[in-house]
Amino acid sequence: MAVNMLQVYLDLLSQPCRAVHLLLTCTKIPHIVREVRLRRGEQRSPEFSRLNPLQKVPVIVDKDFVLTESDAILKYLVTKYDIPEHWYPRQPERRARVDEYTAFHHSYTRPHAAAVFILEVLLPAQTGAPVDEERLNHALVRLDDTLDKLESMFLRRQPFLCGDDITVADLLAVCELMQPMGGDRDVLKLRPLLQHWRSRVQSAVGEAFDNTHRVLYNVRERRRAKL
Amino acid sequence: MAVNMLQVYLDLLSQPCRAVHLLLTCTKIPHIVREVRLRRGEQRSPEFSRLNPLQKVPVIVDKDFVLTESDAILKYLVTKYDIPEHWYPRQPERRARVDEYTAFHHSYTRPHAAAVFILEVLLPAQTGAPVDEERLNHALVRLDDTLDKLESMFLRRQPFLCGDDITVADLLAVCELMQPMGGDRDVLKLRPLLQHWRSRVQSAVGEAFDNTHRVLYNVRERRRAKL
Repeated sequence: MAVNMLQVYLDLLSQPCRAVHLLLTCTKIPHIVREVRLRRGEQRSPEFSRLNPLQKVPVIVDKDFVLTESDAILKYLVTKYDIPEHWYPRQPERRARVDEYTAFHHSYTRPHAAAVFILEVLLPAQTGAPVDEERLNHALVRLDDTLDKLESMFLRRQPFLCGDDITVADLLAVCELMQPMGGDRDVLKLRPLLQHWRSRVQSAVGEAFDNTHRVLYNVRERRRAKL
Repeated sequence: MAVNMLQVYLDLLSQPCRAVHLLLTCTKIPHIVREVRLRRGEQRSPEFSRLNPLQKVPVIVDKDFVLTESDAILKYLVTKYDIPEHWYPRQPERRARVDEYTAFHHSYTRPHAAAVFILEVLLPAQTGAPVDEERLNHALVRLDDTLDKLESMFLRRQPFLCGDDITVADLLAVCELMQPMGGDRDVLKLRPLLQHWRSRVQSAVGEAFDNTHRVLYNVRERRRAKL
């Protein structure tokens, strides 16, 4: 196997991993996937901990360069590899919009969408306890407020989060907002503006979208079969 | 007044505002400061809310370009203005290191250092209640773990967080780690490695460091006078 090829450590059940995987597959950057199965705790293995002491995926190894943090990875890949510039525009104002969304993402989209999946799917699966409906409702209210912000601040006047074309910001966002699907919950159900945006993202990345989300769809199917 | 000059909306008691102010003053980028006094709730005024619906500082207005989020602002300023490249290196691997730290910052340094200041200074001042020692101790343990990570992951083999020279990452970090000083607490007291790093940052930015932190020092002095 080509040891010089870009290596990506990931678990496709993780939202930030899917964002990186989407960019790699839809832009056809040659890479090798190294699966780190979170449910088996493989992120805590001595080998992986040496790569990332935070024991988090995704991580890339590009020759001897090890990089963690999904948004740093996405921006590095666009800069380093020969893929269309629209993913992370070079023009300072347009680039700043992507950096601005990335910061928003850390404080709003990611924690609020992840909380819904954790409360509805992950914790019940790990502990066997029923869903804590009160906490779930709180999480849904916070997510709703974030969805309002995405609509009013980012998507009001443009088709993608940061302008007229798709960027890494859309990948980060869509993967978070898809996550509650694992609990058979479409958080964009009553949100036509965000639904249309998701469809545009899906069209832009093509079949990579469903391929990358397959593992999540399987979680949903298993859940449906149980109920 | 030159309406075309860069305008910065800030309150120097806010850590991310200080990071932006440090870069602007030490690199001598011409700018006008528009103070938004958080303690008076000025961030919730209709005028400011139009600028940033999230009602957060800092915000910059560069001609007609409005930008929020401190790390997006810092990176934009380095890209757009004629200041030394080391603040946000162009070389992809070095730049990726800054983006990687920025992501780490959002999840570790910022929330964990801010919590100490909030519990020790802000909440008691707002409510008149004594410090919740149990919560403060929990916050200090989490911050300690983050300081360990800063030492072992970022500063082990290099003088600044992302390499041999100062970057915007150091500004973001130092302003957070200075914040508990408002409660007369030096969180780097028993940490020679981080102390030396802070001294290097202080030397690199010169007198801008104390000028920018003056408001925080005043909070400390008032606290000392009261005790």
